[in-house]
Amino acid sequence: MQEAPTRLEVEELQENLRVVQELLGHEKPLARQYLVELRGRLDALHAADIAYVLEALPLEERLVVWDLVKADRDGEILLEVSDAVRETLIASMDSEELVAAAETLEADELADIAADLPASVIEEVVQSLPAEERERLRAALSYPEGSVGALMDFDHVAVRDDVTLEAVTRYLRRMDVLPDHTDQLFVVDREQALKGTLPLARLIVSDLELGVAGIMVHESVKLYPEDRAEDAANAFERYDLVSAPVVDASGRLIGRLTVDAVVDYIRQKSAESQLAEAGLRHEEDVFAPVLDSFKNRWAWLAINLVTAFIASRVIGAFEESIARLVALAALMPIVAGIGGNSGNQTITMIVRALALGQIQGTYWAKLLAKEMGVALLNGVVWGTLLGAIAYAFYGNVALAGVMALAMLLNLVLAATMGVAIPWVRARFGKDPAVGSSVLITACTDSGGFFIFLGLATLFLV
Amino acid sequence: MQEAPTRLEVEELQENLRVVQELLGHEKPLARQYLVELRGRLDALHAADIAYVLEALPLEERLVVWDLVKADRDGEILLEVSDAVRETLIASMDSEELVAAAETLEADELADIAADLPASVIEEVVQSLPAEERERLRAALSYPEGSVGALMDFDHVAVRDDVTLEAVTRYLRRMDVLPDHTDQLFVVDREQALKGTLPLARLIVSDLELGVAGIMVHESVKLYPEDRAEDAANAFERYDLVSAPVVDASGRLIGRLTVDAVVDYIRQKSAESQLAEAGLRHEEDVFAPVLDSFKNRWAWLAINLVTAFIASRVIGAFEESIARLVALAALMPIVAGIGGNSGNQTITMIVRALALGQIQGTYWAKLLAKEMGVALLNGVVWGTLLGAIAYAFYGNVALAGVMALAMLLNLVLAATMGVAIPWVRARFGKDPAVGSSVLITACTDSGGFFIFLGLATLFLV
Repeated sequence: MQEAPTRLEVEELQENLRVVQELLGHEKPLARQYLVELRGRLDALHAADIAYVLEALPLEERLVVWDLVKADRDGEILLEVSDAVRETLIASMDSEELVAAAETLEADELADIAADLPASVIEEVVQSLPAEERERLRAALSYPEGSVGALMDFDHVAVRDDVTLEAVTRYLRRMDVLPDHTDQLFVVDREQALKGTLPLARLIVSDLELGVAGIMVHESVKLYPEDRAEDAANAFERYDLVSAPVVDASGRLIGRLTVDAVVDYIRQKSAESQLAEAGLRHEEDVFAPVLDSFKNRWAWLAINLVTAFIASRVIGAFEESIARLVALAALMPIVAGIGGNSGNQTITMIVRALALGQIQGTYWAKLLAKEMGVALLNGVVWGTLLGAIAYAFYGNVALAGVMALAMLLNLVLAATMGVAIPWVRARFGKDPAVGSSVLITACTDSGGFFIFLGLATLFLV
Repeated sequence: MQEAPTRLEVEELQENLRVVQELLGHEKPLARQYLVELRGRLDALHAADIAYVLEALPLEERLVVWDLVKADRDGEILLEVSDAVRETLIASMDSEELVAAAETLEADELADIAADLPASVIEEVVQSLPAEERERLRAALSYPEGSVGALMDFDHVAVRDDVTLEAVTRYLRRMDVLPDHTDQLFVVDREQALKGTLPLARLIVSDLELGVAGIMVHESVKLYPEDRAEDAANAFERYDLVSAPVVDASGRLIGRLTVDAVVDYIRQKSAESQLAEAGLRHEEDVFAPVLDSFKNRWAWLAINLVTAFIASRVIGAFEESIARLVALAALMPIVAGIGGNSGNQTITMIVRALALGQIQGTYWAKLLAKEMGVALLNGVVWGTLLGAIAYAFYGNVALAGVMALAMLLNLVLAATMGVAIPWVRARFGKDPAVGSSVLITACTDSGGFFIFLGLATLFLV
């Protein structure tokens, strides 16, 4: 096993970044002494830590650092950086450099960054691969994003079920180095069909005379390349796995999924949903050019513009009422806003429970009843309070009553839509999370204005 | 190693839940035959899968299932369920049952659920613990939530650096079972000071005559119990770790952190931030009583009420202008809404980059300049579009101009606050994520109304 580059402790990571930035802060072009110091520092870093430094630098400084990194590490670093930063690095490299970098990667790794590489580079690399690796790359590229197939690797150690532990141990000794995250060996028969697993911890404490079949674990989780990565991640979490075998439809071992890929996946999904909720399409390089950022953000703003425009038209329909009682204009955003917040609370909780598989067919009605209960309670509490406030400011009992009633009704609308939107989307097999916040806010905005101004028109003006 | 209960494959998990719900769906009280079948099914499940079933059932059905679970599994299942569901289960148990359940847990596990147990139960359990475990429990309870100390366990295997691999192997054979997630042994000297680690994968492929000191890995990540769990999780992700030693200030080995605890932590943090963004204080049991849900949600609604009220007062200050030109009432929510969305995009991206440690002192100005650029571009694009729409509806050039200008200014305000809010919070050592969305929306709502109505008052009425 090769000694890994220094792994930084928690405080060292920030300190390292600070020093790099200080070195880069000198007059450009950097004097030779600083370049030498910088290069020495980078050489000692783990690839993931170089990736961390690259992500934290503005474009110009980033490329200075990138040029100093030893070419034979380019591949592993490209794997570690975020998609947005990878693009900027790849854009700075010529075909030859890209081919050299790609050739240092294994098939499953290559598949991970293939989308960012020019087709000509991929082609050249594929030509240079041995047949088995080429087949693996083809397989890895064929699985859709978000599937187990797209996350798995091919670095497992398989042993036959009809040999002794002694033979297994001899076989392992000949390997010199076991692949990372080998916590268990996969046991297969003559046809490569998975029979069970042999945890290293069990191998180590067992009598070497025993046969593999006798001590292997039969009940292990196996995955299929078509399984959703999300489900596999849940299985890793539930069963505290470090690795799991991946088999094809006929039960033959074809690869494995390891916990490090699962951790990366979980982190990425969590980041994506956080960004998506705020209306960013992709992870954004913080130092991206203005135009790139604009492209990443405009779609959401356009959607928002449409929903805001609809809400505006609802208000427009009641302009006469507002002209007669201008207090309505000041009070209406409160009704809409609280409804939106309450609806987002409901929908977020339900979308989460759905993602965890916790809501099954028969319980939707129960759920709606509960949310309706919360909405009515909220409606009475906040409606009364807001009615009182409206009365305090405008001294108009009827206005206060309309305010309170509109609040209650909009909260009921928010609860209904908060349950109905995920229910409908789940029914039609759509991801209930996508755009749920926009949809509910659109309903409670337009709905809130309509309810409040409509009631006011009926009872006040 | 004990054969684990069946681990369900991805599809089996949902199917199992469906069958349980069907069994529970029969007339109450359940006939004996269904209870027997249910119990048989539960006995065959992994603790995490029972937890999954419990979380997906309404309270009444949940307690039926909980009563059927074998008492000696209560402890491990309590560990697996969400906080909200754990409370409902604990509330259904008497002291004796709780003590019995708690006694099946190890010190670090007990510490995880101690907050939910009555003090009298904790006390009784502590009395029954051997001195070493009691000390560990005390240590585990002393570390604050979100620290490595709160996540670590004590199940590591330590070996001395002055023995041969032969001796290590003999020692391990005597242990019969290694603790879960033992991918490496920790190498210590006579004083328990950590000297390095010995990966099992390296032990297995090495010549047994060699000494531990000769083949151990020196450069391994070590953690301190005071380290932030977030930083430790980042280290696990960067270096693809399965386990890491935890040492005290004098370098003595006191425990270890394993990847399963890290995965749980990452998942929980991600869930919490998702819930917090929607204004839910805790993870909520989907089937919680109405009053519990109300309590979980009211605080956020109250805050929202305050900000909405402020915005309403801003509008109130311009009632005269609105009365003269009632189109303002219909157009103003668009200006506020787009500003809020754009501000949320900026702040989300910056908060994320801050959490990853990617923004250092000198780059804030660069960041502000970039966001300002995006805001100006957005302002020109959307301002022009909105101005055109306003003109189309109201045929008023001045109104269209005010609309476009207000849009531009509110986007600039959104960008400024989107950078300034996290900057200020980070400066004062606060978590920049907490409430960032409320703050920015409050600014862009009130600010948007003020800018638009103010400009309108100046130029139109």
